[in-house]
Amino acid sequence: MSETHLHHEHGEPHLSAPAFLRDIVIGMSDGLTVPFALAAGLSGAVVSNNIIITAGFAEIAAGSIAMGLGGYLAGRTEIEHYDAELKREQYEVEAKPEVEKQEVRDVFAGLGLSPETQHIIAEEMALDKEKWVDFMMKYELGLDKPDPRRARNSAFNIGGSYIVGGLVPLSPYFFTTHPADGLRWSCCITVVCLFVFGYFKARAMGQPALEGALRIMLIGSAAGAAAYFIARLFTE
Amino acid sequence: MSETHLHHEHGEPHLSAPAFLRDIVIGMSDGLTVPFALAAGLSGAVVSNNIIITAGFAEIAAGSIAMGLGGYLAGRTEIEHYDAELKREQYEVEAKPEVEKQEVRDVFAGLGLSPETQHIIAEEMALDKEKWVDFMMKYELGLDKPDPRRARNSAFNIGGSYIVGGLVPLSPYFFTTHPADGLRWSCCITVVCLFVFGYFKARAMGQPALEGALRIMLIGSAAGAAAYFIARLFTE
Repeated sequence: MSETHLHHEHGEPHLSAPAFLRDIVIGMSDGLTVPFALAAGLSGAVVSNNIIITAGFAEIAAGSIAMGLGGYLAGRTEIEHYDAELKREQYEVEAKPEVEKQEVRDVFAGLGLSPETQHIIAEEMALDKEKWVDFMMKYELGLDKPDPRRARNSAFNIGGSYIVGGLVPLSPYFFTTHPADGLRWSCCITVVCLFVFGYFKARAMGQPALEGALRIMLIGSAAGAAAYFIARLFTE
Repeated sequence: MSETHLHHEHGEPHLSAPAFLRDIVIGMSDGLTVPFALAAGLSGAVVSNNIIITAGFAEIAAGSIAMGLGGYLAGRTEIEHYDAELKREQYEVEAKPEVEKQEVRDVFAGLGLSPETQHIIAEEMALDKEKWVDFMMKYELGLDKPDPRRARNSAFNIGGSYIVGGLVPLSPYFFTTHPADGLRWSCCITVVCLFVFGYFKARAMGQPALEGALRIMLIGSAAGAAAYFIARLFTE
């Protein structure tokens, strides 16, 4: 939501990741974690890699669709919500200009500006109804105009990176025969990938990189360990 | 992010769900969908309900931890990000007041206010440094002050509703012996739950309820069907 805020125009070093990168991060962090944990859980419970691979692919399909399609529909909903609120503000500016002027004054009263300044702003704002509506959308309601292509792109980016992420922990089960061997390699590979991914994620977000890497590793390991012990409970 | 915006104080009928409800929605929509799809996928590939139940519980454990802990750490990161930007703005207001005044003017220039009004606002804002910093945080950077308890509450709400959601599609496999029977009941129960959940979710968000219900049903069904056919591919 903060993409369109003004710091991009000023060149101040406030970091905030672009939408594309955020989608990749969302998809990949769940893609690395959940299929890994599922495979780890099943490794303690079944005797054949085939079941783990089947379950893993079913999970990757389910997860990528749930996240990708979910992201798409969330994006569509955001656009519809914006359009509905826009119509409402356009109507209110025409039908109840005094109420809307008061709302402009209230925004600036909240910032501690004097009643005179509030009045100047509200009157000047009222001269250009398009800008007035823009102001109400952004500063009264906190809504930025959503990009109509975002929903579709976001779906592909999130779903695709979930698939890529999910194939990482699953791949060792192709090249081993026993679930215990698959699990060993899967843990090694996934923990390394979680670390590297967490490192670059944190850097892209402008946060401490080592801390970010350890956090992501912690989530993945906790999920894997929990799934492993819970699956064991059901087989003993 | 938009919770603290001003429309709550005015009583205008702009709808936006509270944080608690949003957490429940996030956890439950994935909880209903992904374990359902995984169980559906395995139903086409294995001969015993036990494996489906084991995999289902492993997935619920993994998914709820990944989402809950992920939400917790995202909340912590948001707080740290806010604090870091706050320190930076506090420093800049002291060290480069003219640059910051120009940024205030730029915000209002973007709203089409005259240079005189921009000047009045910037000078008045500079009288109270605390309010000035608040303004820069909210309107230049688009950051609202995060609630420190949100991260922990959010983790429990998301993780808990993922577990509740996930138990719904899994439950029929307890009471049936063949995966095909479990799948039939799981589809019926889950589709009904997705519809009811989607209906109330849409209403809580102020969107058309029937459309919302159908959307959620579509995501769940697509994920289930994809997982089913992909799992079949690996067993034939």
